[in-house]
Amino acid sequence: MITSISNKKVKQIVQWQNKAKERRKDGIFLAEGFKMLEEAPESLIREIYLSEDVIDKISQNQVLLNKIQRFGYETVTGEVFAKISDTQTPQGVLTVLDRPQYKLGELLKQPMPLFVVLENLQDPGNLGTIVRTGEGAGITAVIMTQMTVDLFNPKTIRSTMGSIYRVPYVYVGSLEETLEQFRQAGIRTYAAHLKGKTYYDSFSFREPTAFLIGNEGNGLTKEAADMADTYLKIPMEGQVESLNAAVATSLLIYEAHRQRSLSVNNLHNI
Amino acid sequence: MITSISNKKVKQIVQWQNKAKERRKDGIFLAEGFKMLEEAPESLIREIYLSEDVIDKISQNQVLLNKIQRFGYETVTGEVFAKISDTQTPQGVLTVLDRPQYKLGELLKQPMPLFVVLENLQDPGNLGTIVRTGEGAGITAVIMTQMTVDLFNPKTIRSTMGSIYRVPYVYVGSLEETLEQFRQAGIRTYAAHLKGKTYYDSFSFREPTAFLIGNEGNGLTKEAADMADTYLKIPMEGQVESLNAAVATSLLIYEAHRQRSLSVNNLHNI
Repeated sequence: MITSISNKKVKQIVQWQNKAKERRKDGIFLAEGFKMLEEAPESLIREIYLSEDVIDKISQNQVLLNKIQRFGYETVTGEVFAKISDTQTPQGVLTVLDRPQYKLGELLKQPMPLFVVLENLQDPGNLGTIVRTGEGAGITAVIMTQMTVDLFNPKTIRSTMGSIYRVPYVYVGSLEETLEQFRQAGIRTYAAHLKGKTYYDSFSFREPTAFLIGNEGNGLTKEAADMADTYLKIPMEGQVESLNAAVATSLLIYEAHRQRSLSVNNLHNI
Repeated sequence: MITSISNKKVKQIVQWQNKAKERRKDGIFLAEGFKMLEEAPESLIREIYLSEDVIDKISQNQVLLNKIQRFGYETVTGEVFAKISDTQTPQGVLTVLDRPQYKLGELLKQPMPLFVVLENLQDPGNLGTIVRTGEGAGITAVIMTQMTVDLFNPKTIRSTMGSIYRVPYVYVGSLEETLEQFRQAGIRTYAAHLKGKTYYDSFSFREPTAFLIGNEGNGLTKEAADMADTYLKIPMEGQVESLNAAVATSLLIYEAHRQRSLSVNNLHNI
């Protein structure tokens, strides 16, 4: 049992919690809580840390019990767990995982892809919510520019509610090259933009589709907006000038999901 | 100019920032930033505080200049402003406002109402996002149970992006009584619920409608769910069990908006 907050492993985890660079260097991410351990793909689990006071509780959950017995775990005191946890009220379960790896080239080959492309999104909660809703709407992957907030930020991981394990992602160096790859793959790129004259539900997303979403404060850069194939707009009543980035993304991908779920007989319903 | 953080007014504002009870007692709320002052309804403004270093900047904005000249303002030092601000990087503008008042009875009389009813929602950011999206989708009002997070929480206000000024709201003592009033007013109540068998886009919301949304962690209480007229579900792919409360609400109210915007000729498109 680890009893000291000066322990080397404890110091390493605190570094991982606080620094995107450290996480990236080691190719890992941290997931806290029972549910996150329960849903963790076995191929990714590297280490499991448990607060001494949760061992009893875990013993009552057969899935978790099997998992911790198979992988082994390190017990730590409540005080140490408070130190390694990123939350105010820790659940006492922390899993260190390898990052899953995805290749854009392979994602592009999937039938009828639906991509979300995020340009410089800054809010970790928004990013996590997009990943969560993205799994719900059946997207192919989240594509992010380098200046987008770290997908493996503890707040982002929490907001994904486990979808981090299942939604493919790629950080791309050049948005321009990526959108060119999309074009060659026959994927149509839509940008939510003030210049858009047509409402989002007037387009057919029953073809390979990508939605381009900008930064919370400033929207898409002019360069990115210029590269989109089509502008669309989300109708807004009152004095609303824009919607929250996660909300706007959710409306778009669920409209695509709605259209794609319609049977052939109901195609006139689009 | 206020130069000391021990100033009585400064202490009062800090209390207002930190304590929902203090804000409620005095019937006020605080809004920070240029945009929030710019959009503030004149009938609600009580006091304006400006950091000494923003005076120049404000002078360049005619709307703001008129406003501060008409209402008067108090200048404070940068140090004092940092104390009264709720944000890490304050904009130097803080407005104290009276809370707008709305009556459920009057809201019920509006033609073709669209209500969002929140049961014990806990996250201030989610609530603010719902208000913001609510204005965008043209809802009639947000109805909240007493245990719902404070609408005038500084984080909520920030997330509303100004919609706090324009979206009517009511905190109700008894959800049961409210839903009975809805019934008598001919408003159909829909609950997003695991028991729902029909997808949300299969219903017609082109009639008086209310959406019942539960707490982030636990969803609707059994009592509340039992009181709804109809269950609906949002389709979810993968292993997603639920969506973020603000996202789920946004999908529902924008589906209502979409249906209500269709022209009579396109009614078969619902």
